Amino acid sequence: MRESEIIDLFLRHLRRQGDLPLGDDAGALRLGDRWLVATNDMLVRKTDVPDIMTPEQVGFKTVTMNVSDVASMGAEPVGFLFSLGIPPDLSADYLEGIARGIGEALDFYGLPVLSADTNEADDLIIDGIALGLTGRLLTRSGAKPGDLVCVTGDVGRALAGLLVWKHGLGVPEKTRKALYEKLLEPRARVKEGAELSGLANAAVDVSDGLSKELHLLARMSGVGIEVYAEKLPIRGEVTEVAGALGLDPVEIALASGEEFELVFTIPEPLLDECPVQCTVIGRVLEGAGVYITADGKRQEMPVLGWEHLGKAP
Amino acid sequence: MRESEIIDLFLRHLRRQGDLPLGDDAGALRLGDRWLVATNDMLVRKTDVPDIMTPEQVGFKTVTMNVSDVASMGAEPVGFLFSLGIPPDLSADYLEGIARGIGEALDFYGLPVLSADTNEADDLIIDGIALGLTGRLLTRSGAKPGDLVCVTGDVGRALAGLLVWKHGLGVPEKTRKALYEKLLEPRARVKEGAELSGLANAAVDVSDGLSKELHLLARMSGVGIEVYAEKLPIRGEVTEVAGALGLDPVEIALASGEEFELVFTIPEPLLDECPVQCTVIGRVLEGAGVYITADGKRQEMPVLGWEHLGKAP
Repeated sequence: MRESEIIDLFLRHLRRQGDLPLGDDAGALRLGDRWLVATNDMLVRKTDVPDIMTPEQVGFKTVTMNVSDVASMGAEPVGFLFSLGIPPDLSADYLEGIARGIGEALDFYGLPVLSADTNEADDLIIDGIALGLTGRLLTRSGAKPGDLVCVTGDVGRALAGLLVWKHGLGVPEKTRKALYEKLLEPRARVKEGAELSGLANAAVDVSDGLSKELHLLARMSGVGIEVYAEKLPIRGEVTEVAGALGLDPVEIALASGEEFELVFTIPEPLLDECPVQCTVIGRVLEGAGVYITADGKRQEMPVLGWEHLGKAP
Repeated sequence: MRESEIIDLFLRHLRRQGDLPLGDDAGALRLGDRWLVATNDMLVRKTDVPDIMTPEQVGFKTVTMNVSDVASMGAEPVGFLFSLGIPPDLSADYLEGIARGIGEALDFYGLPVLSADTNEADDLIIDGIALGLTGRLLTRSGAKPGDLVCVTGDVGRALAGLLVWKHGLGVPEKTRKALYEKLLEPRARVKEGAELSGLANAAVDVSDGLSKELHLLARMSGVGIEVYAEKLPIRGEVTEVAGALGLDPVEIALASGEEFELVFTIPEPLLDECPVQCTVIGRVLEGAGVYITADGKRQEMPVLGWEHLGKAP
């Protein structure tokens, strides 16, 4: 079964949902004048962990990917939980690396661990759960026509790094370092999420690639989105790898997942007072669909994921 | 590595904990005048699911075991989350059964699902997470000398049912039904947990067996506990199986895990106003240790788990 079929199957049986329907980065419950935000994300070694990742990086990333979902809801993370599935042949050193990575991430994000569970399993599995609080929720469904579309940081390095690794591409050490840093040690935009809570109309974190997130944002908000290719914050290292592989750097930027940057839409008059360092990459339109304009030519943006570029040998 | 070694390894690296140290049924964070309670519990098919369990029962139990941990903290469950690891060869029917079971449990407990995640994995894995709220926390560390020790419902049927199944024991249909009901379709004591919140000094749910829970309660509260064997609420069906297998029904009752009954301690003067149907099985003492008195003879209670009786062929 495809993931979408599995999700449909479950949705048929899960009639009771929270104060926000399923489908956002996290779920939410109203608690008086605040929202409690909760999210969970399971990491399976076989499918989610490149060989070059250290156990410390695996542990840290388990926290980051959940904290990022909380941040994209405009919430401040307040607690972390995790469940482990541990194969009997996993070394104590590897396990200690994971513990160290989780501990470092909790220090980095200033977050307590509330509960943990350990089990024997066939493969290494870490299910992370993060909780957050906010006075005002950011969702995927709040984008308004006229809003500017913005993104924090830069996009594309995670996938470019994966391509370097998969193709065994020889690149200068400085390039490799810049790419692997984003691939192996991404950081969640916690401060930015909290700052955007009072200003943005909609937000999502880049987990599955910018193009997928933009399509989701447009569909769930019932709007169209136009993005200008030349505005995308693509670093030179990504262009370098694209050149070496005969790929379009814009495609890499649109397909690259697990970037953990925040994409948000904001009314233009509020941009000046927005303290978040970001790049304006487009605009929300009346209507539907996601478009990309390059060299003055506007076309529909394809739905790209890193499976389109990253998994090719 | 043993589970206790894994836990120690992680505790060395997890310096930041919630407003309640790790070690209770659930973690907790103070939110104004309330406590947010959070717990997670992973189910791995290979080790946790007897063959006779239907997928509906598996799904339901994933909710129950987490809701029970919330209830044992004196909290009202307010939300559920889950992550799935799905092996590629799992049938759509089996998966739909799990979805149905989770949905039925959410209806039964009146609980919304806040977030869900699905992944490919080698074995079926369901990580359940439950959140709850309470004005007053019940922990494992609040028992006071002089308190009565009480338990809801009855104990022993889950393990007696497992023994019947493992030994292929021929028992009357009525007996099998009473035992399998508890083994396969246990229910969490949600109403009782909320009612005990204002009255009890300490509580724990019977996940790992009554004797283990009592030892934990005594150690974490810095008290001793005395239990009277003849007061234990053991049903006739358990005695029947014990007789057939040459076992002591009291040992079955003490070792039986995943009962999801609540064990709590309460000041004697409050018992009359306690609306929870329960059995007084003992008393909290000054000092340390857990004792069981049978036929007027008092001895130390062994730490029994269902691995002692249930896994023997």
